[in-house]
Amino acid sequence: MPPFRPAARLARAFEHPHSYAPRATIRRNPTIRSQLQRRCYSVEGNGNKKPDPLKQWREEKPNPWGRRLRLYVFLPFTCLLIWNILTEDVHADTPSIAEKDALLKRENGITSTSPMRLRMEQFIKTHQKQIVAALEKVDGQPFTIDTWTRPEGGGGITCVLQDGNVFEKAGVNTSVVYGKLPRAAIQKMRVNHKALDPDVESLDFFAAGLSMVLHPSNPNAPTVHLNYRYFETSDEQGNTNAWWYGGGCDLTPSYLFDEDAIHFHKTIKDACDNHDKSYYPRFKKWCDEYFNNKHRGETRGVGGIFFDDLDETEKDREQLFAFVQDCLSAFLPSYIPIIERRKNMPFTEEMKQWQQLRRGRYVEFNLVHDRGTAFGLNTPGSRVESILMSLPLTARWQYMHQPEKGSREERLLDVLKNPREWV
Amino acid sequence: MPPFRPAARLARAFEHPHSYAPRATIRRNPTIRSQLQRRCYSVEGNGNKKPDPLKQWREEKPNPWGRRLRLYVFLPFTCLLIWNILTEDVHADTPSIAEKDALLKRENGITSTSPMRLRMEQFIKTHQKQIVAALEKVDGQPFTIDTWTRPEGGGGITCVLQDGNVFEKAGVNTSVVYGKLPRAAIQKMRVNHKALDPDVESLDFFAAGLSMVLHPSNPNAPTVHLNYRYFETSDEQGNTNAWWYGGGCDLTPSYLFDEDAIHFHKTIKDACDNHDKSYYPRFKKWCDEYFNNKHRGETRGVGGIFFDDLDETEKDREQLFAFVQDCLSAFLPSYIPIIERRKNMPFTEEMKQWQQLRRGRYVEFNLVHDRGTAFGLNTPGSRVESILMSLPLTARWQYMHQPEKGSREERLLDVLKNPREWV
Repeated sequence: MPPFRPAARLARAFEHPHSYAPRATIRRNPTIRSQLQRRCYSVEGNGNKKPDPLKQWREEKPNPWGRRLRLYVFLPFTCLLIWNILTEDVHADTPSIAEKDALLKRENGITSTSPMRLRMEQFIKTHQKQIVAALEKVDGQPFTIDTWTRPEGGGGITCVLQDGNVFEKAGVNTSVVYGKLPRAAIQKMRVNHKALDPDVESLDFFAAGLSMVLHPSNPNAPTVHLNYRYFETSDEQGNTNAWWYGGGCDLTPSYLFDEDAIHFHKTIKDACDNHDKSYYPRFKKWCDEYFNNKHRGETRGVGGIFFDDLDETEKDREQLFAFVQDCLSAFLPSYIPIIERRKNMPFTEEMKQWQQLRRGRYVEFNLVHDRGTAFGLNTPGSRVESILMSLPLTARWQYMHQPEKGSREERLLDVLKNPREWV
Repeated sequence: MPPFRPAARLARAFEHPHSYAPRATIRRNPTIRSQLQRRCYSVEGNGNKKPDPLKQWREEKPNPWGRRLRLYVFLPFTCLLIWNILTEDVHADTPSIAEKDALLKRENGITSTSPMRLRMEQFIKTHQKQIVAALEKVDGQPFTIDTWTRPEGGGGITCVLQDGNVFEKAGVNTSVVYGKLPRAAIQKMRVNHKALDPDVESLDFFAAGLSMVLHPSNPNAPTVHLNYRYFETSDEQGNTNAWWYGGGCDLTPSYLFDEDAIHFHKTIKDACDNHDKSYYPRFKKWCDEYFNNKHRGETRGVGGIFFDDLDETEKDREQLFAFVQDCLSAFLPSYIPIIERRKNMPFTEEMKQWQQLRRGRYVEFNLVHDRGTAFGLNTPGSRVESILMSLPLTARWQYMHQPEKGSREERLLDVLKNPREWV
């Protein structure tokens, strides 16, 4: 295939016929041609003269359609062509990473040598199914499942259970997004990822994650949140130029049972310790700092772990993938024993009211402080219902509510104001 | 009182005694003084010998305390004095505007010639009482009243009615704040107020306002919000250098009765038209743009008016004060007829649920988009309970709720997506 040279094509499209001598002589000089024609006729009319070998050539009438065609068809076509050349993506022929990935999946399936994008997608989707199945067993009611796709590639699966037997509202979502990062977003991300080229106008990105929030009805049972995600950017040729993992999970009780907090933290710590002894203490602290209603000086709950931007400066990609896999796999063992213990405990109307107030604090954190929610809500065209699925079904705000001295409610507040080490 | 001249005092503090001849001769030259004394003693003690006039002077041990005193007492004292002079507020003797205002109130009371600060304070407090009394009459239950003061001057009166007969949650607050604006805040405010000096590190400010949110229990009765405020900054001498008014009111029904929206808008429009025919259309549009859940493409309710930064570039201060007074005075006539019509209307459980969902949207606006709430929550030491008093007692978030085709709920959404002209 000859090289694609838009400049040369463009020059040809603009070329003026008069500068192209032979063609112009034949077709375009009607003055000279009609002089010649007239001479021919006069010769012919004479009868005895030698026939003119160039007669037909001389007689040829100028075809007005040549000029019209050029005017009505070629000119608009040329303009369109120029417009197209000027506006088209220079690398339109290079398949996007979404197209590459779709092809790879179709042809080879997903193996341990597939790109991380495909392995992460497969991993979160498999776990989404396992988690939904386990929660349906706990609740006794099925989730409803919504799938959605994005025109640019990717899509999501939203599994929701509302007004269940155990869960007032539960959502387990996966999303896989292929998109373009604008320059401003690249500049912000460069703070943590120096591999990102600061000079490009936009970058292709890929993001895949599983996110989940479970709000049980029983005020003795804690709310839990989990999110693990993988992010990748690629250059114009589709080669990865930056990648990172983020995520975490945290527990938000309305009534604190120390044994629940200890069990939750211990299960996560074991998963972390298998990879790096420094992970649990670092990510536990990060969690207490992040899930924090700063305006009230209270953490959202009793914490867990939180991390972001873990890339090659932390560990290699395979090691971090193994770590995230273990964290996500630790979720069911960390939470199922707790919900099983609490889901049928008796409670009073006052306990339900206190739970509603704590839900109000949950809403405050998610809408005022959570960066992910803010980013989502401020992104035009984002799926608001999936972003706000994290909010509880019901919440309450009561002016100047003060728990009684020495009550369990007051003890919870004390722990939220002074985060503890649970293991 | 002699003029306070720190430079002169500083020079004297540094002054070396020897350079100050007359005083030094009398008080400070122990050498000469003791010569005189000792001459006397020797005459006395010896009797017949000619006394050595310089004996005592020769024998005299130098008194080490003179130098030590200077070293240990005068030097630190001098340093302290210098430190004090350098760091103390040059105008520490100038009373603050809070002190000035307190004095003025004590001595003269508040008249039409008092500073605008005092007149606005008096005006909002008088109206707070009237509004609270009118609402208590509507509800049948009394408000509870909290007062609070700020150490820097000013304070607030928070009137709350929770779980009333008519109002699920109602708050009518006034606050009067004397404080200091940091440089960053001044820079931001200069966008709208060129009179602010960009070169100062901080500015004294005064803010007084009345703010109110009423959430009735009956889903047929609309929520209403109102806020009118006056802001002033002053230079180091306590002279006003910038001032402006802001505020507005808006109606948020769960079930739309056109006559309510029309009555509410008409009453406000009449108040506006008395001052400037352009006010209502301008401020109605501003309201639709401001009270807007952009992430959902819906206004919060059916609007009203909203304005900010109205200063001398708009009209003179007296005219604007009269305008704000009329707006606030229009509140009771604009809302009381509506709440009286709706407070006892029958409703179903489904209507209550829809109201709860609409309350969820109210929370979304206040926590995600409202600049005042964000500013308050991010200001250390602010009174969170007063800021969040605007939130409803209860709210609800339901995944993918879709009102039925042709229902009243759907009609409301349609009006919120396409704001109407009501008068």
